[in-house]
Amino acid sequence: MMKWWGWGSPEVQFPITHKPNLWPWICRELQLDPGASPRGPVSRSSIVLPTPVIHPAFLAALETVLAPGQIARGDDERLLHAYGKSYPDLLRVRRGEVTRAPDVVIFPDSHAEVEAVVREADRHDVCVIPFGGGTNIVGGVNPLDQSGRMVVSLDLRNMNRLLRLDEQSLTATIEAGALGPKLEEDLQRRGYSLGHHPDSFEFSTLGGWLATRSAGMQSDAYGKIEDMVVSLRMVTPSGTLTTRPAPRAATGPDLNQMAVGSEGVLGIITEATMRIHRNPPVRAYHGFVFPSFEEGYAAIYGCAASRYPPSLFRLSDARETELAFQMKGPATGLRGRLEGWFKTYLAAKGYTAPCLMIVGFEGEPDAVQAGRTGAFRILKKQRGFHLGTRVGQSWSREKYNLPYLRDFVMDYGVMADVAETSTVWSNVLPLYRAAKKTLEDRFRADGRPCYLGCHISHTYKTGCSLYFTFSAWMTPGKELEEYHRYKHLITETFVTHGGTLSHHHAVGIEHLHWMAREVTPTGVRALEGLKAALDPKGIMNPGKLIPARPLGATRERAEME
Amino acid sequence: MMKWWGWGSPEVQFPITHKPNLWPWICRELQLDPGASPRGPVSRSSIVLPTPVIHPAFLAALETVLAPGQIARGDDERLLHAYGKSYPDLLRVRRGEVTRAPDVVIFPDSHAEVEAVVREADRHDVCVIPFGGGTNIVGGVNPLDQSGRMVVSLDLRNMNRLLRLDEQSLTATIEAGALGPKLEEDLQRRGYSLGHHPDSFEFSTLGGWLATRSAGMQSDAYGKIEDMVVSLRMVTPSGTLTTRPAPRAATGPDLNQMAVGSEGVLGIITEATMRIHRNPPVRAYHGFVFPSFEEGYAAIYGCAASRYPPSLFRLSDARETELAFQMKGPATGLRGRLEGWFKTYLAAKGYTAPCLMIVGFEGEPDAVQAGRTGAFRILKKQRGFHLGTRVGQSWSREKYNLPYLRDFVMDYGVMADVAETSTVWSNVLPLYRAAKKTLEDRFRADGRPCYLGCHISHTYKTGCSLYFTFSAWMTPGKELEEYHRYKHLITETFVTHGGTLSHHHAVGIEHLHWMAREVTPTGVRALEGLKAALDPKGIMNPGKLIPARPLGATRERAEME
Repeated sequence: MMKWWGWGSPEVQFPITHKPNLWPWICRELQLDPGASPRGPVSRSSIVLPTPVIHPAFLAALETVLAPGQIARGDDERLLHAYGKSYPDLLRVRRGEVTRAPDVVIFPDSHAEVEAVVREADRHDVCVIPFGGGTNIVGGVNPLDQSGRMVVSLDLRNMNRLLRLDEQSLTATIEAGALGPKLEEDLQRRGYSLGHHPDSFEFSTLGGWLATRSAGMQSDAYGKIEDMVVSLRMVTPSGTLTTRPAPRAATGPDLNQMAVGSEGVLGIITEATMRIHRNPPVRAYHGFVFPSFEEGYAAIYGCAASRYPPSLFRLSDARETELAFQMKGPATGLRGRLEGWFKTYLAAKGYTAPCLMIVGFEGEPDAVQAGRTGAFRILKKQRGFHLGTRVGQSWSREKYNLPYLRDFVMDYGVMADVAETSTVWSNVLPLYRAAKKTLEDRFRADGRPCYLGCHISHTYKTGCSLYFTFSAWMTPGKELEEYHRYKHLITETFVTHGGTLSHHHAVGIEHLHWMAREVTPTGVRALEGLKAALDPKGIMNPGKLIPARPLGATRERAEME
Repeated sequence: MMKWWGWGSPEVQFPITHKPNLWPWICRELQLDPGASPRGPVSRSSIVLPTPVIHPAFLAALETVLAPGQIARGDDERLLHAYGKSYPDLLRVRRGEVTRAPDVVIFPDSHAEVEAVVREADRHDVCVIPFGGGTNIVGGVNPLDQSGRMVVSLDLRNMNRLLRLDEQSLTATIEAGALGPKLEEDLQRRGYSLGHHPDSFEFSTLGGWLATRSAGMQSDAYGKIEDMVVSLRMVTPSGTLTTRPAPRAATGPDLNQMAVGSEGVLGIITEATMRIHRNPPVRAYHGFVFPSFEEGYAAIYGCAASRYPPSLFRLSDARETELAFQMKGPATGLRGRLEGWFKTYLAAKGYTAPCLMIVGFEGEPDAVQAGRTGAFRILKKQRGFHLGTRVGQSWSREKYNLPYLRDFVMDYGVMADVAETSTVWSNVLPLYRAAKKTLEDRFRADGRPCYLGCHISHTYKTGCSLYFTFSAWMTPGKELEEYHRYKHLITETFVTHGGTLSHHHAVGIEHLHWMAREVTPTGVRALEGLKAALDPKGIMNPGKLIPARPLGATRERAEME
């Protein structure tokens, strides 16, 4: 399990000492007092959890199907399952604010046990929240139910096996609780890979990826998680849905695509048959810089439409590139001087606000070679300057570190959050500019220096995603309300300017406000219909994904906004 | 519109006279009397349609929003909209059996008019059946409602415009009533293609393709219709669903994939934004023969896993190959002798029961060249014998002709139908053998000579589809019950042996019996939930896709079978 108060393993901290330039730069940019003392979370022992709501008949029923070790009633487990890892989650838990926690945490060992738990929960009107790795940043695992019912956090960590491998069809059936590293290890040992590496890879699970429509770094090559799913099982209060492992079917609405993205509000995905691929013998990440975001965008657009698109693109805008440069270790002596000269050289060539691109290739050696030749031609036409493979390697090493940095800056009262969307190619630059301008204008008007960076990643035939990171100091005691104003503003800009509400972080509670506009009130009705059919008592992860407000009100609100 | 009694344009017949070998071969194979006289459909004038159910207040409301020409009450239009083009449909209509026909046919001109019609229909409890080209072969357009309500056939033929083209994002927004040729013409004129050519292409529409999860010939290159959809609008009795044109989203279940395949039971798709591509400068179809279906399969499997898979594969088994050879025109003189020698040569080489493969490539000249080189190497390794491009061309010319042949043989009391499925690679040959053996055994036990052919087409990373055609004489007066026994048997074999109920023909009424087994009773509940939310009065295409039987009964039945 991760830290109760922050990201990642309890023994791992952000490696700030290896990055001597970073903290001084952040202090300058955000106008922080470099001499201020950090203020960590409250002590664990000072946190008082709410008295658990216990339904004795439900617990008694559970005890007939589960071993005692599978039912955790202690406060430590309850605390660890009370929050995900969003900025508001961490803000609250660091203060010791835990107004609601699951009343019990259950660890099933099998699909049949999940069925038994859900059946008993439905019978006794107990709420169930599926829990994978707990990395959700939209409030997806938080207990919210206001009705006074007992709430169970159903932790799938014991269900992490590779159940079947079909090497001829290139599919693997895997239990939903498998964490990224375990799942990949099981597949790699047999020569295969799922090819799904989201930023949360180390701490998130297959079931979580499926429930939230996760995207991994190499989605350009292997698709988002919803593109990889062949079939699945989902336990609902109305029975278990089992889909057929057919490559394609014409048997009504796609029920895989109904279960994927359902965020636990319809049921619990217990296993899935996923498309896999043979381990690529070659993996190569290259760095490029572009004189502008626009030229970098044009290069990506050109490659995406080409015959051999790379397996990974990540184009940072100038601001995010600045941050990336500050993340480097110390460069002293000759290397330091060479880097200095190189920057001067680039600036003289017009790269005054350089934009960093990582471009990745994987596959057979000749395919990688062909892809690289084709892509580099397009990148160079857009004035991409090749930095070699060092930058790519260091990005690959650092890519899982950023959430630890958020914990570090939170010790100094700094908010850091992300917002991501996707849109069609013709709208990428307009949407980027609108979101950047709107947020920067607001920070400026508030007299609050900010960091706002963005990158393009995850390309598709018709468009790509835009991923923003924003950070600033918050007024002590007003962090939540201030944060929500900025978060609201950028999301509002996405929805107003033709972006989607989320490309891969899901809806949870943080994006609920916009759901009726995202999918239209008729779309919300469809989701309500699914919910009513599969979870008639509303025990599954209540309060998430589907707006609870009466639809009439939602519609009026949507029209007013 | 097509013939009221059969496939295609009223002036077009199957070109039997250009195929001198075909009819004698069919008579031999099916043990028909070659001297028998054909018996066509009853005369149009002898058909008496049921008295229409008219809801005057509904018609009056319609007349305030539609022009008189948009509301057809005549028997000719009613008859044309009473049936699709399945074998049972044609059998009944040829006999003049029309126990139920739509009471009125409505031709809306716009999305707003569809909204108005559905709103009034919902208010007055009138059933609505969306109608595209009428090519459905699973009963999808047939009026079935037993409640005595008025039934409207909503024909979208006037809604066929290309509304928007986004050349940068490569998307086109098209009205749902556009027939294949019109849609392609509009796109081709601007240099683009949708790349969707199902066998029904000439007479089917975008809306029909979407509602039934259609597959086109080049699906290997461009995907099935559900892979091409970016966003859509669907008018339901509970309002209009409009999805966002985002490349990917993490905003709950995929509502595009809920509307696609919904077969009119949730609402009417009025327009869709589709992924398009630039016209490929090169298209090449090649013919190959293989000594066995197994070697042909191995060749396809090898290519599908390779880097440059072809854009089209169609591998006929030995029986379907025989039929294909009989479809050829007369080869006389030197050409006839050369063909004879060639057959002898192939037989001597072990190709005694040759299996024909068509393999297609399209794209830039160098990509086609590279794809061809790679694929041919794999095909030849599996003893594929290259026949050149003539066979490919003649297949490409003939591919829309087969439904006309069905009309021709029906004049002689012969049943002809198709059944298709898909499965993962490891199950393709076992499923093929099981279906072939089961059906052949039954025909043999019935003492009824049959034609049973099969081809592989539509490949995916994890598997492909199998498409069977079966034909035999039926006992006069018992055609329907005899046909349904064979149809039931092959479908049952698909479902029992790990195939899907349908890969691209949809469910309608013909596959309804197996739906609870295909998607599990919980899946049926999900569909019922969607239906209840979007169409609470059950006016949308009642009786299709979702089994009407109580679920308990369905479940018992599934367990019994």
